[in-house]
Amino acid sequence: MSSRAALRLRTLQGHLGSPELVWTQGWLQTLIPVPLMAQGRSMESVSSPLTTHVLDTVSGLPAQGLCLRLSRLEDHGQQWTELRKSYTNPDGRCPGLLPPGQVKTGTYKLSFDTEGYWKERGQESFYPYVEVVFTITNETHKFHVPLLLSPWSYTTYRGS
Amino acid sequence: MSSRAALRLRTLQGHLGSPELVWTQGWLQTLIPVPLMAQGRSMESVSSPLTTHVLDTVSGLPAQGLCLRLSRLEDHGQQWTELRKSYTNPDGRCPGLLPPGQVKTGTYKLSFDTEGYWKERGQESFYPYVEVVFTITNETHKFHVPLLLSPWSYTTYRGS
Amino acid sequence: MSSRAALRLRTLQGHLGSPELVWTQGWLQTLIPVPLMAQGRSMESVSSPLTTHVLDTVSGLPAQGLCLRLSRLEDHGQQWTELRKSYTNPDGRCPGLLPPGQVKTGTYKLSFDTEGYWKERGQESFYPYVEVVFTITNETHKFHVPLLLSPWSYTTYRGS
Amino acid sequence: MSSRAALRLRTLQGHLGSPELVWTQGWLQTLIPVPLMAQGRSMESVSSPLTTHVLDTVSGLPAQGLCLRLSRLEDHGQQWTELRKSYTNPDGRCPGLLPPGQVKTGTYKLSFDTEGYWKERGQESFYPYVEVVFTITNETHKFHVPLLLSPWSYTTYRGS
Repeated sequence: MSSRAALRLRTLQGHLGSPELVWTQGWLQTLIPVPLMAQGRSMESVSSPLTTHVLDTVSGLPAQGLCLRLSRLEDHGQQWTELRKSYTNPDGRCPGLLPPGQVKTGTYKLSFDTEGYWKERGQESFYPYVEVVFTITNETHKFHVPLLLSPWSYTTYRGS
Repeated sequence: MSSRAALRLRTLQGHLGSPELVWTQGWLQTLIPVPLMAQGRSMESVSSPLTTHVLDTVSGLPAQGLCLRLSRLEDHGQQWTELRKSYTNPDGRCPGLLPPGQVKTGTYKLSFDTEGYWKERGQESFYPYVEVVFTITNETHKFHVPLLLSPWSYTTYRGS
Repeated sequence: MSSRAALRLRTLQGHLGSPELVWTQGWLQTLIPVPLMAQGRSMESVSSPLTTHVLDTVSGLPAQGLCLRLSRLEDHGQQWTELRKSYTNPDGRCPGLLPPGQVKTGTYKLSFDTEGYWKERGQESFYPYVEVVFTITNETHKFHVPLLLSPWSYTTYRGS
Repeated sequence: MSSRAALRLRTLQGHLGSPELVWTQGWLQTLIPVPLMAQGRSMESVSSPLTTHVLDTVSGLPAQGLCLRLSRLEDHGQQWTELRKSYTNPDGRCPGLLPPGQVKTGTYKLSFDTEGYWKERGQESFYPYVEVVFTITNETHKFHVPLLLSPWSYTTYRGS
């Protein structure tokens, strides 16, 4: 660890008391307990309310470089509007998938180009793509929509 | 959000540049990018190399208050030694499951009291408990062992 | 068991030697070993090449009465054509989903009205529906596409 | 299909009216609807009350030749007694896992040698073995305990 990073860490610990610090693949992750009543709309400016995470259950590693698109059902349920096209990072995630300002209740779709992912690894796959459609009924909640992926099976769930 | 928490947050942001801040059920979670080369053994003092996460797929919420035990196979594979007994927190996790000092390669077991969890919710369940046995072959890697749980099904995987 | 059913069973056993008979929720299921070389196109007249099975992982029982639709991508990938609308039977299955005569290679979609299923049970659900899109590359193979379902998670895989 | 098998099939169809016949990897499977009231204890002599099925989600095929053991907790919960050691057949199943005569309520364990299975395929795996412990509370019900398996993830559920 560089001395500059160590300094930042000590300063951070000094300011926050005893947060739990977790080290994840090049990210330092801090969990800072805050009273539940402190939660509110004002925090949305620093938080993405919708996140995903793709795990490759063949390699046991995050699925990196998988193309995905986020869409929302608009026009009274007649039309899917694409909000974002992105690729999973080395940790299988897409930070900033949905900017807080665009959050509203409604029906969303995450479309994963799983066939492209497996083709790059020379592997046949059962699914040309995987689509997960879900409902956001509360704009203030967080929604984590992960995908556990193998060439012939997948699992999705609401995470936290 | 209380003014004291807001102050801490601003101070934090000032020190760290632009970390991504994520708001999770009463926890403020900060993702601070650090160069990969900064990772090393010296960081293990602030990081748990083994983590878990239990999700209740009936409620769509983290499984809180579920009792779990971590054991390691000792004595040349003859005996399970219990290392830790704990309960999942409101986010379904057990911080500090395995202190860095106790990490070594070997066979580990996570035992989840799933029947107790469902009984408290008045629900019958197929499994008296769930045990996941896994191998740690590299002391410097992180191992995340989540459990997706319903009364009649469960899924586990190596997360990240 | 009625005497007529018992008679049929004995006659059946006499004709077939020692098939394995399995009793499943009102169905008598017989597994008759036949040499592998006996398989061929001529058998397709008595076999559905595409099957599904929905399991409710909250109750541990087959999901009965769940509406599903099978579609195929036609017109050079421009249009989904609905082939069948049906409901799962007491064993969570849809016999005769795709008549053998309609089998051809291509992209298919199974659309499950999961929200309707959970609403009837007074349960909120994350998904307005579940769609599984898959590719049939060989007309002579069988494709079993099950769904393990809870209100906040689902798993699909190629079964057998 | 051999003429002898075809003859058997026609005879079978003549006796049973119109059963649904399903062709599965060398097995001819017949589903014969029988009134629900026909079910009873007398049928148990031809039915295995406990079954399993292992699917390899990397290949999309049944996991063949995987060694598994069935045990029951005896001596007031003090001791696991092995009832059966077997290997999955080409369809990933173990017919006759538990003879009807040995059925009684209690706690059972299915232990799958998943590491051996992956090693034969030159693949590293996270789990030295997979154990699924479950409770049989009713001797007259059927219990199907499948395993969806990849090297770094698995799912089990009560099937039907």
